[in-house]
This record gives sequence, C-alpha cells and structure tokens, in this order.
Amino acid sequence: MSCDFLSLALPGVQKLSPYVPGKPVEELAREFGLDPASIVKLASNENPLGPAPSVLQAVQRALPELTRYPDGNGFTLKQALSERFGFELSRITLGNGSNDVLELIGRAFAMPGVEVVFSQHAFAVYPIVTQAVGATAVQVPARNWGHDLPAMAAAITPATRLVFIANPNNPTGTWFERAEFEAFMASVPEHVLVVLDEAYTEYVEPGEALNGFDYIERYPNLIVCRTLSKAYGLAALRVGYCISHPQVADVLNRVRQPFNVNSLALAASVAALADESYLAESRQLNRDGMRQLEQGLNELGLQWIPSRGNFIAVDLGRDAGPVYQGLLRAGVIVRPVAGYEMPNHLRVSIGLREENQRFLEALAGVLAQ
Amino acid sequence: MSCDFLSLALPGVQKLSPYVPGKPVEELAREFGLDPASIVKLASNENPLGPAPSVLQAVQRALPELTRYPDGNGFTLKQALSERFGFELSRITLGNGSNDVLELIGRAFAMPGVEVVFSQHAFAVYPIVTQAVGATAVQVPARNWGHDLPAMAAAITPATRLVFIANPNNPTGTWFERAEFEAFMASVPEHVLVVLDEAYTEYVEPGEALNGFDYIERYPNLIVCRTLSKAYGLAALRVGYCISHPQVADVLNRVRQPFNVNSLALAASVAALADESYLAESRQLNRDGMRQLEQGLNELGLQWIPSRGNFIAVDLGRDAGPVYQGLLRAGVIVRPVAGYEMPNHLRVSIGLREENQRFLEALAGVLAQ
Repeated sequence: MSCDFLSLALPGVQKLSPYVPGKPVEELAREFGLDPASIVKLASNENPLGPAPSVLQAVQRALPELTRYPDGNGFTLKQALSERFGFELSRITLGNGSNDVLELIGRAFAMPGVEVVFSQHAFAVYPIVTQAVGATAVQVPARNWGHDLPAMAAAITPATRLVFIANPNNPTGTWFERAEFEAFMASVPEHVLVVLDEAYTEYVEPGEALNGFDYIERYPNLIVCRTLSKAYGLAALRVGYCISHPQVADVLNRVRQPFNVNSLALAASVAALADESYLAESRQLNRDGMRQLEQGLNELGLQWIPSRGNFIAVDLGRDAGPVYQGLLRAGVIVRPVAGYEMPNHLRVSIGLREENQRFLEALAGVLAQ
Repeated sequence: MSCDFLSLALPGVQKLSPYVPGKPVEELAREFGLDPASIVKLASNENPLGPAPSVLQAVQRALPELTRYPDGNGFTLKQALSERFGFELSRITLGNGSNDVLELIGRAFAMPGVEVVFSQHAFAVYPIVTQAVGATAVQVPARNWGHDLPAMAAAITPATRLVFIANPNNPTGTWFERAEFEAFMASVPEHVLVVLDEAYTEYVEPGEALNGFDYIERYPNLIVCRTLSKAYGLAALRVGYCISHPQVADVLNRVRQPFNVNSLALAASVAALADESYLAESRQLNRDGMRQLEQGLNELGLQWIPSRGNFIAVDLGRDAGPVYQGLLRAGVIVRPVAGYEMPNHLRVSIGLREENQRFLEALAGVLAQ
C-alpha cells in the first residue's frame, strides 16, 4: 500500500517530459559495444577544439580550494564580464549554464495564469521552464524555420509576462536582423520581459548581426542570455549569465541558489573570457567546418537550413529516425529533432575537419543502404 | 520612465531575502586590507583537510573533456552511490549541491496553498525554498535548540505536503534519536513527504545515531538528502543527492535541469565515495577539533550547544554581532546566526588544530576588550 506520489506533484510537473540531451559517447559505447575513442559525437553543439590551455591553468590554480564553497557572489567573474562588456555588476546574473538562467527567469516571473510566448522549433528549455511553473505556453508558428517576430508580437496578450526569442535559434540556426528586432521590441509593452537567448552569438561574424548587448540601455525589459558552454568551450563546467535591468537582476538573484556556479567554473570563465585567440580559433574552425558540411550535404543532394550557429539542420526528406540509428551503428552521434516538430531533420554540430568527414561518409553509407 | 520590475515577480519572490553565505576570505581581505593567507575561515562548515589526492587525480583525468557536456544522467556517480549504499539507481536524484536537491523538492511538491513544516533554528534554505514557490511556511518552535518532533507532527494539517527535518541540525548541531524519529514517522500521513536532511551525518559516529538510509524501504514518503560538500570535501564542486521512493525520484528528475551536476563534480564524487581513508581522517580531525573547541570555550567560561556536526554554536551571553566584528578584524571569520533567531550565538566550524587555536585566542582577545 503506497501513495501515488506523482499525484502530489504540481499539475505542470506531472505532465513534464524532461529535456532529452544528446546521447553521451560512453552510453553509445556501452550499448553497441564500441570503442569510445572511435565514436564521433556531433550531437550537443560542443566546441570540438578541446579545452584552452589558459583555462586548464586557471582550473589547476583553483584546485587547492576544492573543499571551500564557491564565492556565492561570483565577484571575480562578474568583474571580468563587466570589464569585457562594459556593464555594471548590478546588471549581471550568473547561472549554472544558461539553462539555469532561463529557469531563474521562469521561476521569478511566470506562474499559473501567466502566458509565456516562444516560437515553434525553439529551444526545448523554454516550454519546459514554462510548464514546470504551471504557466501557459503560447507557441507561435515559425516562418521558414525561424522566428516570426511580427506574429510573436501579435501573440502577446495582457496575460503575457515573458517572451523567449533566440538569435541564432537552436536547433534551426536561423536568425533575425536588427530592423526586425527593433520593430518587435517597439511593439512589446514594457511590462513584458523579452528574453533574448544569444547562446550561439559568438559564432556570428562580428558586425554581421545584431548584438543584444547594444540594446540593454534602450530596452529596460530586455534580458540577454549568454553561455560559456559553446565558443568558450566550458560545457562541462556549466556557466551562463544574463545582462538585464538591475531591478530584474535583483529579482533573479533572489531566486538564484547561493552557490549555483561552482568554483572551477568561476575560475575557468575568467580565463576563457580573456583568451581571444581560443575564441578566434573556435570561430575559424566553425566557419571552415560549416562550409565543409554545407558542401558535403550538397554533394549528397540534401537540403539544409542556413545556420549561423555551430550546427546545421539537415533535411533527410523522410523520417530521420532510421538515419539517426544507422549513424549510431556507424559510431556517429548526431541529434534527432523530432521533438522540435522537425521529424525529417537531424541537427549536426560542427566538429573537427576529420569528424565532419566521418559524419559525411557515414551518412552517405546509411543513405546508400 | 521605467517599469517596476519587482512588482512583476511572483509575490513570494518579491519578499525573498537571499541566503547569506559565510564571508569569503577574499572579501574580508579586500575590505580590511588583510593578507588572505593570514585569514582563518571557520564560517561555512567546510572540510579543513583540503582536497583528497584521489579526488584531485579524478579531476585531472576528467579535464580533457572540459568542452563536452556532463552526462545528464550522472550514470557513473549513481552507480557508485548504488554500489556503496545498496539502492537502485531509480531511487537517486543528483543535485548541484544538496541546496539544489532541497529546491527541487520544493518546486516539485510545494505551491501556493501548500504548507511546509520545519523547525525554528533550522537551515535557512527550507524557508527560502518555501517562500520562492509561494507556499506557506509553518515554523515550529525548537526545544533545547533542537527539533521538537512531536510538536512538528502536531503542526501537520490537511494542507501540509512537506516537512523538513535535519539530523544533525545546522546551525545548532542538535540531533534526535531513532525512537523519536520512528514515533514521528508513525504519526505523519503517507501523503506528507518527510525530507530528512543528513548533510552532516558522516560526522556522527557510526552506530551512534539513526541512519536515514535504514528507513527508505520502511517509509515510502521519506526523502533522505546528503551532500559531498562536507566530510567528502567537495564544497567547491557542488554535489548533493537524495534517496527516495522511485516515484518521488521520477518527479524530482523531471524538474531537475538536465546538466545540473558538472562533469568534474561527477568524476570527483566517484573518487571521493571510494576514499575511505580521507573520510576517516576527516572524522578524526573533527572529533579532535570538537574536543579542542569545547575545552577552549569552557576555559573562557562560555556556554555552547552540544553538536554532532562539524561546527559548534557558542553562546556569547549577549549580542554576538560585535564579537563577530572583532573576530573579523583579527582575521578570523565565523558565522553570525542572528538570522536563525540566535542573536547571542556564533557558529564556529571545526578547523585544523592551529586554526581552532587561532580562533580561541582571537575570541579571548575580543572578549577581554
């Protein structure tokens, strides 16, 4: 005789389907009896360069303090962000990855009765965060796989408190331009917070697209989220942050767990932000790999969505599930995106030259079967 | 013209006062112009031994994968916990510190209209978690600084969904015995989840007190939380976990962020769980330091609360604030606990022999002023 504990949970939580991450290399190795070293993982938009020496040094220097709690205020990291991007410390909120930041925003401002607007084919964490707090998700149909900003603005009602937009968007790689964004912001009431997720912005050529940081002063209801998991290469350590109006940051810091960012992450982030050459190399590798994949996919006669991220969504023209499985058997992990209403696509992260080649060859093999 | 963003936040969030951590060494050094190396920090119940060599080796081995996301399922850590304590993987929930686990429980099961019961002088995170989700906090007066379990049972109403109890309790160090606990559990309805926080249980002599893990099968509504931040020495890395009914674990894992535990924390935890000698040495150091502090405080004619944790709460017999400030000026950081309704006490973590001595001498000096 035991209680139905699920029924005790919040209604939104009861219906929650957790985020499905890319399959870990170790898991595939266990399941298929493969050598982990032979597996190519292009599934989680990770930086294929491997860790920067400067970051490894910073981690080494922090190791003697492993038994001590992190600085709960993240003072040195906030100072580094402030120096690099020119914002007051009072505008910064640090997170255990930008996932944490997105969740803090949801938990601080959304609740039952509140509507949260986001786009079709947008990052899965937006609907998860919305549902976990019992708010109402309003998903706006995409246009050409990207955000339809005018339609999103039109979806705002008096009950709307949050809008999530991503530039570039994951998993599609699509983007919007300054003029579109400014027109959108002009039509959003100031009591609606706009969360601009720029997790992949470092892969955009400087000057090529809008930079959310340019708009922080102009739009007090704008929150710009960034991560050190991608171009800065710190996915394992979990560091994200957002820049916002100080009053919004104050609210987010009330909800934030006091030690949400670990000590090694804090130390590594300061080093990563200072390492211009690693960032430049990451960008160059991504540019080259993107061209390699675009060209290889063209040669296979496949469609793909033009992307400004470190990944590309390939259209298989049919259910992508069996192709994903075939690639797994060949030791190549990519990401199925059926959960993003894209059943015919696979999202492929840009890897090293030889990893991209392995993927293209494996894909050719699977398609030829 | 700018919106009042605070007014847009959840009512509970608007009234939230964030957790106040122990003052970091670097912060004190900045404020008072002190040499960080000369500062003794006995403020955060940290392990004074420093990191275990086995843990440092495990971290080193994990560094090459710093650009990869952690295993979102924490498979190897769950397996290590399962092997060590004999629970199925399906009963385990991992957290970014046990703070994260406590918060997951609050977010999964508490909401406006729900009552959450905890004791006076209990860990600050219980009321913070309760308020953040808009639930109603029911604080039960303590008895001799410890939990009054019969009174806590009597405080349960049809609206109660969670009860937080801690053994030993922080910041008092107090504990309860098996018989008291069993009588308490017998009087709690099964649809009320009891969260037994055992963050300091490793400092209790084996066989000396109740072990929550012994009761997991017997009480399906029991959740036992533990941490690797204290006796295992991993505070910087943030690892906690709880053992519960599999259905409760399923709910918690729905709310959990997919990569809440970082890769280095996962690797370090597996090593720490296997390192019996570090744990034994931590315990021995704590026993010796506790005796040293008890004796030193007796010699100063001060009262203290008998403690089974790695800290001791000292009664200054008057407002402890000026004593805290005096100790800071002497380069010794302890923890004021006025926020725990203990304005005359200071909580002192057990340090190395020479650190405890520094504290006792500094305290004697401040009291003599």
